[in-house]
Amino acid sequence: MPVGGHTVTSYEQELISLRHMMNEMGGLVVRQTELAIRAIIGADPDAAAQARALDPQVDTLERDVEALAIRLLALRSPMAGDLREIVSALKVTGDLERIGDYAASIAKRTLRLGTFMTEIPSAGLRRMAQLVLENLRDAVAALSTHDSDTAMRVWRADPAIDEIYTAMFREFVTYMMEDPRQIGACTNLLFIAKNFERIGDHATNIAERVHYVVTGEVLPTERPRGTASPQA
Amino acid sequence: MPVGGHTVTSYEQELISLRHMMNEMGGLVVRQTELAIRAIIGADPDAAAQARALDPQVDTLERDVEALAIRLLALRSPMAGDLREIVSALKVTGDLERIGDYAASIAKRTLRLGTFMTEIPSAGLRRMAQLVLENLRDAVAALSTHDSDTAMRVWRADPAIDEIYTAMFREFVTYMMEDPRQIGACTNLLFIAKNFERIGDHATNIAERVHYVVTGEVLPTERPRGTASPQA
Repeated sequence: MPVGGHTVTSYEQELISLRHMMNEMGGLVVRQTELAIRAIIGADPDAAAQARALDPQVDTLERDVEALAIRLLALRSPMAGDLREIVSALKVTGDLERIGDYAASIAKRTLRLGTFMTEIPSAGLRRMAQLVLENLRDAVAALSTHDSDTAMRVWRADPAIDEIYTAMFREFVTYMMEDPRQIGACTNLLFIAKNFERIGDHATNIAERVHYVVTGEVLPTERPRGTASPQA
Repeated sequence: MPVGGHTVTSYEQELISLRHMMNEMGGLVVRQTELAIRAIIGADPDAAAQARALDPQVDTLERDVEALAIRLLALRSPMAGDLREIVSALKVTGDLERIGDYAASIAKRTLRLGTFMTEIPSAGLRRMAQLVLENLRDAVAALSTHDSDTAMRVWRADPAIDEIYTAMFREFVTYMMEDPRQIGACTNLLFIAKNFERIGDHATNIAERVHYVVTGEVLPTERPRGTASPQA
């Protein structure tokens, strides 16, 4: 083993630790999003409570990743690809933390819906939640495996989510007009839909990051767009 | 001048450039928020267009800050306080970019309100927008001057904003129930209020960062809370 071999090994171990922490954080927000979906689709208050209970772990991981990144930057002078990966980890934890927050917010709002969700059709919301979850899972998997192709698929899938969101926005406004007693519940559903749309957006940010870490290329600021405006 | 003096000088110049870029980005999102407020309070579509037109500049600055930060990290091996500042710049640009996005989104939504805002009292929204703008200005100033006291004031002011938001949420739901023709406009106002609340939240994130850069201390994850829940 060459002189300095030990140093290289601890450096690599620290980089592996950083990746493990990113995987753990990604796994946690996927789990939070799954629980939030179960809370709303299944009207399941236990799932809502579990989604919210995971929030402090996500926040702690964001801080831990930053502490380790600073340590790596201070002591290991990482270069090129490794430096790009460490800087990207600092940015991606911001997206993951926001996703966890949105999932917890969805969970909290489901507790105010009562039996509303079982009374109205909500095919749009279910479909949107499913698409967002798939995109988030793919983005987190692509982050873990450095898979640029999957990342690009996530990046291209976002406009479909925006289109469902726009249609759903109109649907809920119509419900409110037809039955003003549903205004409170529908308003919560509007914010829930918006939160899913935001989770999809942050999954797209993560996908852009993966593409950048793997290829060194920055994707255009203008994202692919659907035919409809994302806001009603 | 000692040997290596030139290197130190270019390092310091690059750090000063980074601070200039942060100031510029902070100034731009304050401007966007001012324009968004003018768009809604003054029913001013030109202000709305200007707020939205600044978005690409904000996005470009976020990328430029990251490129310079990577350059500094790769070539200058910054230590201790400088390293903390550079890593924090990477995180703060994320908050600034989100603030710019929320301001642009508010501006876009005002275009859908028509004459609605001149017809109903909206003291809560005006007061909230003003408080958020003050907090954002203070956070950006504290970032520029490394003023931890101002940062702590911003951090403590956020619950007041959340309380106004909660009251306003109920106010708008009441309007919708009283006059279902206003549901479309009120829904947009609800999202506008939510966006202001989010801008306030990101201003608080920036304040936490300033405190960390200046003191090296991380503030508790649990923020001060008002008496009311931030969601109706």
